[in-house]
Amino acid sequence: MRLERKEARLRADQYSKLTEHARRLSRAKAEGGDRITENTLIRVAIDLLLDRADLLAGSDEAELRNSVSL
Amino acid sequence: MRLERKEARLRADQYSKLTEHARRLSRAKAEGGDRITENTLIRVAIDLLLDRADLLAGSDEAELRNSVSL
Repeated sequence: MRLERKEARLRADQYSKLTEHARRLSRAKAEGGDRITENTLIRVAIDLLLDRADLLAGSDEAELRNSVSL
Repeated sequence: MRLERKEARLRADQYSKLTEHARRLSRAKAEGGDRITENTLIRVAIDLLLDRADLLAGSDEAELRNSVSL
């Protein structure tokens, strides 16, 4: 899988939650295979958003978030 | 809003779709206010994932993705 670097800017609360979930999932998973890192979860998050990209609308971050909320 | 840098690794297809949607949303929005960039969408994506973090399970990226799919 070819990956491209992108310098993201995350809120501190997002970053710490990503770290926490990556650790939890790493501990739970069977040995072997790829590591589960914050970057793994960021890619999963983007796929989740792109699945709903048709719904994305709004002029600022809060409106965008609301447009794709469940 | 305090933001932290995180060097992400995105698939090429994800990156290009984020760029495309950021441009589309920027063109559509009213003038003024913050820019809508790939980073705006990455933060929205992470919030969407964290909303469903209780569902996250799996040993690799495909399993993680499936665990939170709609």
